[in-house]
Amino acid sequence: MLNPSLIAELREAIGPENVLDTLEDRICHSFDGTFAEELPDVVVVPTTTEAVSRVLQIAYREGIPVVPQGMGSGLAAGSVPFGGGIALSLTRMNRILEIDRENMTASAEAGVITAAFAEEVESVGLFYPPDPGSIKHSTLGGNVACNAGGPRCLKYGVTADYVMGLTVVLADGRALRMGGKAIKNVTGYQLLQLFIGSEGTLGVITEVLVRLIPKPQHVRTALAVFPRLDDASRAVNRVLMAGVIPATLELMDETAVACIEEAMHLGLPLDKEALLLLEADGNDEASVLREMDTIADVCRQSGASEVRIAGDERERAELWRARRSLLPSLARRAPNQLLEDVSVPRSEIPRMVQRVKEIGRQYDLPMVVFGHAGDGNLHPTILFDRRDAAQWSRVEQAVRDTFAAAVEMGGTLSGEHGIGTLKRDFMELALGTNSVQIQRQIKRALDPKNILNPGKMLPGH
Amino acid sequence: MLNPSLIAELREAIGPENVLDTLEDRICHSFDGTFAEELPDVVVVPTTTEAVSRVLQIAYREGIPVVPQGMGSGLAAGSVPFGGGIALSLTRMNRILEIDRENMTASAEAGVITAAFAEEVESVGLFYPPDPGSIKHSTLGGNVACNAGGPRCLKYGVTADYVMGLTVVLADGRALRMGGKAIKNVTGYQLLQLFIGSEGTLGVITEVLVRLIPKPQHVRTALAVFPRLDDASRAVNRVLMAGVIPATLELMDETAVACIEEAMHLGLPLDKEALLLLEADGNDEASVLREMDTIADVCRQSGASEVRIAGDERERAELWRARRSLLPSLARRAPNQLLEDVSVPRSEIPRMVQRVKEIGRQYDLPMVVFGHAGDGNLHPTILFDRRDAAQWSRVEQAVRDTFAAAVEMGGTLSGEHGIGTLKRDFMELALGTNSVQIQRQIKRALDPKNILNPGKMLPGH
Repeated sequence: MLNPSLIAELREAIGPENVLDTLEDRICHSFDGTFAEELPDVVVVPTTTEAVSRVLQIAYREGIPVVPQGMGSGLAAGSVPFGGGIALSLTRMNRILEIDRENMTASAEAGVITAAFAEEVESVGLFYPPDPGSIKHSTLGGNVACNAGGPRCLKYGVTADYVMGLTVVLADGRALRMGGKAIKNVTGYQLLQLFIGSEGTLGVITEVLVRLIPKPQHVRTALAVFPRLDDASRAVNRVLMAGVIPATLELMDETAVACIEEAMHLGLPLDKEALLLLEADGNDEASVLREMDTIADVCRQSGASEVRIAGDERERAELWRARRSLLPSLARRAPNQLLEDVSVPRSEIPRMVQRVKEIGRQYDLPMVVFGHAGDGNLHPTILFDRRDAAQWSRVEQAVRDTFAAAVEMGGTLSGEHGIGTLKRDFMELALGTNSVQIQRQIKRALDPKNILNPGKMLPGH
Repeated sequence: MLNPSLIAELREAIGPENVLDTLEDRICHSFDGTFAEELPDVVVVPTTTEAVSRVLQIAYREGIPVVPQGMGSGLAAGSVPFGGGIALSLTRMNRILEIDRENMTASAEAGVITAAFAEEVESVGLFYPPDPGSIKHSTLGGNVACNAGGPRCLKYGVTADYVMGLTVVLADGRALRMGGKAIKNVTGYQLLQLFIGSEGTLGVITEVLVRLIPKPQHVRTALAVFPRLDDASRAVNRVLMAGVIPATLELMDETAVACIEEAMHLGLPLDKEALLLLEADGNDEASVLREMDTIADVCRQSGASEVRIAGDERERAELWRARRSLLPSLARRAPNQLLEDVSVPRSEIPRMVQRVKEIGRQYDLPMVVFGHAGDGNLHPTILFDRRDAAQWSRVEQAVRDTFAAAVEMGGTLSGEHGIGTLKRDFMELALGTNSVQIQRQIKRALDPKNILNPGKMLPGH
């Protein structure tokens, strides 16, 4: 527990209304989107970058851990305050600061909900492409800290590709402003990129400046039904090699489809092994239609028994409803889900999909395969019951085998969810000893007292 | 001078044919694309990553500076071996290692000439977009070390946007392999991005893996003639706000045009204040043509007196000849040229162009304005004679004022050439003290003996 005089000092520093220490408040900040949880000693909800600096100054002086938090939607136990300390929630810093139409940029405080930010931007005809599954309940700052992805990243790139500037509070409380509205910038090391995806271990992100693009005017969505999973996974690369880059290319296997259908009754086929959800977009309607024709042709030639193209916005919403309801639907099947996030070279997708199915059979676990197949980022998901110790031990083995398979195929542990606590011990497997050592040296240089989200990302730190 | 026994040890370590210490060889490695020069004590030209490791192990043990070099085309004195030591040239590591059509990636040793690499890639229908002006006489590794740009970066992004993997030899000789063919990767800190643009101060890049895209099938090029420079610079943002992203949007002012015309006799208009060179490309011909129509309309509405659209590949080559011959043409006007590289938010282009012209008048120096206006990256170029001390002092003041103006407008010192030695002392002006301190901490963590390209990028280091 923190010394009460420190809590008093925090109240003095950032206002008593922004320091919460009731058990209820601490419980609210004890977990994320996984099954992990631990109580922080105190929760601070600063409302300015200066207030964040003051919290860090106190924490640095005292050597108290500080765990930055957004909305707690993370899937790697990256914002769970293991070991207690201060949970620093950015949720009260949620203002959109500027939308600059001429430079096509927007800036906001880190705690803004990404969907709210994206809507505001779209209301002036601009577009912020990254669309993590958690978009409605995750924050822009959290997305930056984890370098979030999403279905649209195939064509448009991930969060890192949009960040032009950041304000970050360092371990000792100094604020660092990086980047700006100049598009090209090679002045000094790419510090901006170092903080993106650093999961709160190098600094607390308080403000974000992103570039925007004009909103694509036309979009077409299709659902391709494949009797064989293997054909579906081979179709992915064939579409891309046909010279088309769809905005989205999502794969769902039979179990995923069955779970969705059980929950939603959308009339999805239950006797087919896989679906691909594909989307083409752009500013030239004729060219979008031609792209969609190519996509449909390639799917049919690759073994699709049916390709449904949405005729209007209502039908499009219907197709997306299937994909969007997948995660909640899975929850009906088993008390716990472990959502993995392996990323492999695109050419290895068929092999990785097969391997995941084998691992599921080997450990007698239902493993659902879905994900952003177009960029090789799959979410093999294990359905299980954590209260069953024997089953949990099989889950751990299945996870280990899945990671090993991804790395063996030239892939990696995580495409968009991050490392957090859950994948920390696999870092050396994925990156090698030298890389982990260098990362540790950087962590030490920037956070010598190891107070920022300690124990996350780096093994044995 | 190095101890002869160390030169013997280097010969032993990497083969006598790869260690050069004649005066002629040392002179060849004493300069870059600026007017700066200094002799290295010895030149090593290793042929493998392992040989680079052996050189670094010796240099680290002895505390000898190592200056990595590509083809010496840099414009910031970033590879000039001030203070002597070992010039480590990558030019004998120039093999293309793999072109992977399925994953759309290619890998090569760092010393391959970028144009040779790009041609090889295009021969199989793929495309490596970054096209620095030096493409025919710079190396892929040098491009990565400087995060090179080029005209096509407006639509396609800079070198950093294409690098998926690197092999880097660290200061102590350890080799670090980073990244891979998986498109999405959030496993650990973005170390890859830290080495990109670090100008040889954090490690020696020996191998590069890049992503490729399908080669755009159709391209249209136009030259727009503007009686008024101000109208041309305003047209830049108007084109972009019309929802079109040209592949290229280059600005050339009156002096630039006059220099080209003097040298090349292309029939360019000499009584107009500016030209814009614009290019649209894509895979759908009709849509490329429509984009070019929009571009031409916007230019005319913004004050262009004429828009010439190239009808075929020969006419296109003619339009590009003007832009490509600019730098050699400038050399006819004065013995020396100082090519600056400021980058400003796009909205500030008209103001920055005006300011550069004012600075030229104030210091009585011919300042040519050209550059990648579409992304706010301008190359104000001063023509002068270095033997004239009074003029040189005015050049230094003009440079200082140009940097200050860019920073004041929310821009920065360098968009694509890097910091090297020439802009080092302006780093704090551009980035602030905290940023420079953090960068120094990172440099110290990775290169504790400060042997890698010492004195470059960071002031007072």
